[in-house]
Amino acid sequence: MSGSSFGQIFKITTFGESHGKGVGVIIDGVTPGIEISESDIQYQLDRRKPGQSDITTPRKEADKIHILSGIFEGKTTGTPMGLVLYNQDQLSSDYNTIKDLFRPGHADFTYLQKYGIRDYRGSGRASGRETSARVAAGAVARVILKAKGINITAYTIRAAGISCREKDLTVIEKNKMRACDIKAAGEMEKRILDLAEKGDSVGGIVECLVSGLKPGLGEPVFDKIDAEIAKAVISLGAVKAIEFGAGFACVDMKGSEHNDRMDSNGFKTNNAGGIIGGITTGEEIIFRIAVKPTSSISREQDTIDISGKEKRVKTEGRHDPCICPRIIPVVEAMTALVLIDMYKRQAALLA
Amino acid sequence: MSGSSFGQIFKITTFGESHGKGVGVIIDGVTPGIEISESDIQYQLDRRKPGQSDITTPRKEADKIHILSGIFEGKTTGTPMGLVLYNQDQLSSDYNTIKDLFRPGHADFTYLQKYGIRDYRGSGRASGRETSARVAAGAVARVILKAKGINITAYTIRAAGISCREKDLTVIEKNKMRACDIKAAGEMEKRILDLAEKGDSVGGIVECLVSGLKPGLGEPVFDKIDAEIAKAVISLGAVKAIEFGAGFACVDMKGSEHNDRMDSNGFKTNNAGGIIGGITTGEEIIFRIAVKPTSSISREQDTIDISGKEKRVKTEGRHDPCICPRIIPVVEAMTALVLIDMYKRQAALLA
Amino acid sequence: MSGSSFGQIFKITTFGESHGKGVGVIIDGVTPGIEISESDIQYQLDRRKPGQSDITTPRKEADKIHILSGIFEGKTTGTPMGLVLYNQDQLSSDYNTIKDLFRPGHADFTYLQKYGIRDYRGSGRASGRETSARVAAGAVARVILKAKGINITAYTIRAAGISCREKDLTVIEKNKMRACDIKAAGEMEKRILDLAEKGDSVGGIVECLVSGLKPGLGEPVFDKIDAEIAKAVISLGAVKAIEFGAGFACVDMKGSEHNDRMDSNGFKTNNAGGIIGGITTGEEIIFRIAVKPTSSISREQDTIDISGKEKRVKTEGRHDPCICPRIIPVVEAMTALVLIDMYKRQAALLA
Amino acid sequence: MSGSSFGQIFKITTFGESHGKGVGVIIDGVTPGIEISESDIQYQLDRRKPGQSDITTPRKEADKIHILSGIFEGKTTGTPMGLVLYNQDQLSSDYNTIKDLFRPGHADFTYLQKYGIRDYRGSGRASGRETSARVAAGAVARVILKAKGINITAYTIRAAGISCREKDLTVIEKNKMRACDIKAAGEMEKRILDLAEKGDSVGGIVECLVSGLKPGLGEPVFDKIDAEIAKAVISLGAVKAIEFGAGFACVDMKGSEHNDRMDSNGFKTNNAGGIIGGITTGEEIIFRIAVKPTSSISREQDTIDISGKEKRVKTEGRHDPCICPRIIPVVEAMTALVLIDMYKRQAALLA
Repeated sequence: MSGSSFGQIFKITTFGESHGKGVGVIIDGVTPGIEISESDIQYQLDRRKPGQSDITTPRKEADKIHILSGIFEGKTTGTPMGLVLYNQDQLSSDYNTIKDLFRPGHADFTYLQKYGIRDYRGSGRASGRETSARVAAGAVARVILKAKGINITAYTIRAAGISCREKDLTVIEKNKMRACDIKAAGEMEKRILDLAEKGDSVGGIVECLVSGLKPGLGEPVFDKIDAEIAKAVISLGAVKAIEFGAGFACVDMKGSEHNDRMDSNGFKTNNAGGIIGGITTGEEIIFRIAVKPTSSISREQDTIDISGKEKRVKTEGRHDPCICPRIIPVVEAMTALVLIDMYKRQAALLA
Repeated sequence: MSGSSFGQIFKITTFGESHGKGVGVIIDGVTPGIEISESDIQYQLDRRKPGQSDITTPRKEADKIHILSGIFEGKTTGTPMGLVLYNQDQLSSDYNTIKDLFRPGHADFTYLQKYGIRDYRGSGRASGRETSARVAAGAVARVILKAKGINITAYTIRAAGISCREKDLTVIEKNKMRACDIKAAGEMEKRILDLAEKGDSVGGIVECLVSGLKPGLGEPVFDKIDAEIAKAVISLGAVKAIEFGAGFACVDMKGSEHNDRMDSNGFKTNNAGGIIGGITTGEEIIFRIAVKPTSSISREQDTIDISGKEKRVKTEGRHDPCICPRIIPVVEAMTALVLIDMYKRQAALLA
Repeated sequence: MSGSSFGQIFKITTFGESHGKGVGVIIDGVTPGIEISESDIQYQLDRRKPGQSDITTPRKEADKIHILSGIFEGKTTGTPMGLVLYNQDQLSSDYNTIKDLFRPGHADFTYLQKYGIRDYRGSGRASGRETSARVAAGAVARVILKAKGINITAYTIRAAGISCREKDLTVIEKNKMRACDIKAAGEMEKRILDLAEKGDSVGGIVECLVSGLKPGLGEPVFDKIDAEIAKAVISLGAVKAIEFGAGFACVDMKGSEHNDRMDSNGFKTNNAGGIIGGITTGEEIIFRIAVKPTSSISREQDTIDISGKEKRVKTEGRHDPCICPRIIPVVEAMTALVLIDMYKRQAALLA
Repeated sequence: MSGSSFGQIFKITTFGESHGKGVGVIIDGVTPGIEISESDIQYQLDRRKPGQSDITTPRKEADKIHILSGIFEGKTTGTPMGLVLYNQDQLSSDYNTIKDLFRPGHADFTYLQKYGIRDYRGSGRASGRETSARVAAGAVARVILKAKGINITAYTIRAAGISCREKDLTVIEKNKMRACDIKAAGEMEKRILDLAEKGDSVGGIVECLVSGLKPGLGEPVFDKIDAEIAKAVISLGAVKAIEFGAGFACVDMKGSEHNDRMDSNGFKTNNAGGIIGGITTGEEIIFRIAVKPTSSISREQDTIDISGKEKRVKTEGRHDPCICPRIIPVVEAMTALVLIDMYKRQAALLA
């Protein structure tokens, strides 16, 4: 109800702030008897963690996973998995200069309005660090989905004003942008480093592709699979838009162009992005999201303090000049959480 | 769980198909003591109903609301409101020609894959008629929100390749397109009628604006207010994309441009679309959706039948050549349902 | 959230008051492809309806079921079933004499405290008539459970101070008390008719037996199957207590007596009532409930009016002098709703 | 869905087994701005912990609370509280002798049936240790309820065949049985020690009293406040029955005796136990539960192993010969969790 749970059957509940003792997640509804190790989870966390390259924040975060429950002799028991990532000691005093200021683009103002109290250290609960709990839970979901033949791959297709010209999924983990075009990736990196030096940041577009799904997953009316994915992904603070299949381009298409026709080999096109009436068609699910430029920049900006007085603020330290490479494992994790839930919901309906 | 409920506190549950006995909704969690009449609900249903103009389907639907419970002496009692719209007799035999065919763009194939059985008469549960239950429930929410000073207005900003050049909210209900530019609306209508004559359809963009909200509404992490709106609106079969505030345009902006700065008068810009960290800023919420071209067209299209054999199919009768004008009250209703729930969730948190 | 929904996967949501237009229920999550007819539902409603014998109220209620959706060509489609029972015209003016009085044992006072407004006609939402929606939904669940070999039988074991001396399940539907001892039933009936003539009422104990369940159903920790049954049954206004297996008698037993031992044929005893750790053992589930004496009596009682002034009140008309026979199908229905949900939850977990 | 969450608004989700790394709970929906310290929680945990006296198990458990999130500068922030109790190193090898046996009265058999896999060390998730997470969460709820004037007190009224003869709430924490009659308590203790020496255990009755509640709390129909309390308390493995107010005794009462009449001073009796129609009357809530004799006894018992072969089993070590004193803080915690949720649900309804 207060927004820290996601999913109906494979249900996760998270806690934690960037500067408390740690962040964590409970997964309830894990299929019993599945082999899972800490390294399955750690692998995904490492893809999200800061300091991976010169275009991500060099900030150090303790992203080491601890499994507290739900595993016995290497297998899931079906009881809740409790996962924790402890925070390393950080000097909260760093935040004294901004404790009474609302940083532009950050949730400082809105949290204070909502709660009447605010943990001002490093954005508290609104920190990107919260997403590591999602990645940890998603990693468990992905192990189960993989055994069903389902693969989820996200990648940057545009950043810093540069678009990929080709879609080569084999290069994604081979470039710092996690882009699907290694040449375009190089151009993006260069421009982003320039911007970072000027203390600024930039946005981008990430595309996500799901293959291996059978048709018939998703619940009609309110819990359409695209509706659930939209919620899942827009719930990331940096994501401001989502489109499925042909997306916004459908606006200028005619019905006779947009409708995906079938022949004896199946669907001839995939304008619908793999989902019709909220239910999978068996084609690949494909969607794209708009990632806003990172709010934390080292340029000085106008703002006010908690008494309403006009001030100038500047976020010290170095931050991600473009969040695309690090948001990719989070988008994949959220998608995995939707899919595993839909898979289980379908089993429940037919039982 | 099976997707026919929406909302946590002000919770609606719907039923009904296009060719069964009727469609309806139960609203649980209605504030007691509120004056509501059938005409409050009927007004919104009339905005959604078919046959409003020559650019909507001339199909006759019985959209008369019946309140079965939850009202006593003109006021809500706090117990569930049961609302029903009975279907008029329709000749189901009309559908015999398509009962074994999958109409392109429709959920015929996916429903059969999911359930192994399908009510083929007029799309069954996947029919647009299902949205009348949402509009009815949303109308109740809107009465309560209005008393709190909250207004929700949606309007067409692009259709048939033509964009509005101005944003005049006073003309919305004065043109058939419910566009915010009466001149552009005329051009849209003309082009749509041309397309309709050729048996085709077209898409458009609808924008929605919410004013009067106080800051601090919305739940962090998974139930961010933008995430909930995205789910609410993408759960409409015709909606394939959503963007908030600057939306996809944020992709090419720098952090120093996109961050909404504050001065002593409040926010200087609204790139965030009224929501930061998933919580309202107090600025207007603004979002835009992509409406796909209507799937039902009278042109003959390739498809297959349930045995996989290739066939040709053509949707008889006249359908909406552009669904924008009729989807507008549905988008407003879904937005209202999210907002009233968030309002009540905030009260619960602070209690 | 506001308490009109029950179940997680096979989820029901009800509406309606005793003197509004009707009562009804939406069932979401119905297994598709199941043959269900109105008569399957009507049969159970007829067991609950008033006027069955001289020991039930002779009040006339229209308990005719109308299926509005979710069935196509005699089978469930997997989409929500909307079920309605319309109320017959009743003279609400009958209630003018009690509209400002709080009837002892009724929810008149508590509803007004909660909502600040109250539909005073025949108890409104707190009327026993509300349970007909439960029975209708439960009837659907029972059809599905029966195909899995699961049977649910409830029966009176004590009423008006008389206990059954034998447990003969074949006589339950052959006596007005639905007791498991036809001779004891006769004695109960006689004593109840005596009491009814004096304008009074009496309580009783109902036992419920479930056979055919496989072991392993139920969710540990909070949603133990006994916890869910307890909630389901205590949610009936007339039920004030529940005990499983040995029940309150376990209090004076030793561990060495109460523990159900196993041998190669299975469990040797069933003190646990078929549930250990919240999960079915495969033995029969057995529980007993305390049914309070009907609150509506025709004797004059002390009370106050809404202004706090002392008054005398007397419930006109004839009421059930003992609610046991008519609560039995409701108890069975609630049990069925818990079981079908647990069955589906287990399928979801393992998927 | 998988049963590890409880509550709708003040919602808790638990994890952990007796012999994993620890047990814990996330509380989502905590009122912001409330002063809470670790000692508020530790106090309640100490009332539940083993080794309090010679009539509780001398087993050592690490019941030290760690607050990982949701508190800032001594106050709740409104974001989720993550609470963990780490387990101390325990020799799992102790459990090798019972790993293939089903201990009578324990959930060994049912867990294996449900999950197909089982953590056999000390009952795993079905261990009483799981309830420490409930007590921790309940302690937070109690701080908030106390500020509203609501007090919850449970106490033993019968154990080992001895009933309390008086109800003196001031002596509860002054005797090892937490009984409301210090003299009866002494007799109980003596008889329990005798039984313990013989390797046996015994049950009892615990009564719970809630004062300070305003009328009008609770949701009608399925979520009646008594239904929710019944679920909450029956969800404790050792509780086999519950009764409210007059309870099972109502069975032999007449309506004219059981109905609680009102005069200008309020209710004259409280047979309803403070709840009518599922909503609080403003009188004290009063209920009693049957606590079964502890399943772990050191006498040898018949059982089978996982291959169905007949065996003898004996639970080594010393266990609680009567669980009443230690279940009391758990019953209070569960009651607190229901009440705080109902309080918040009422605020949401009226908002």
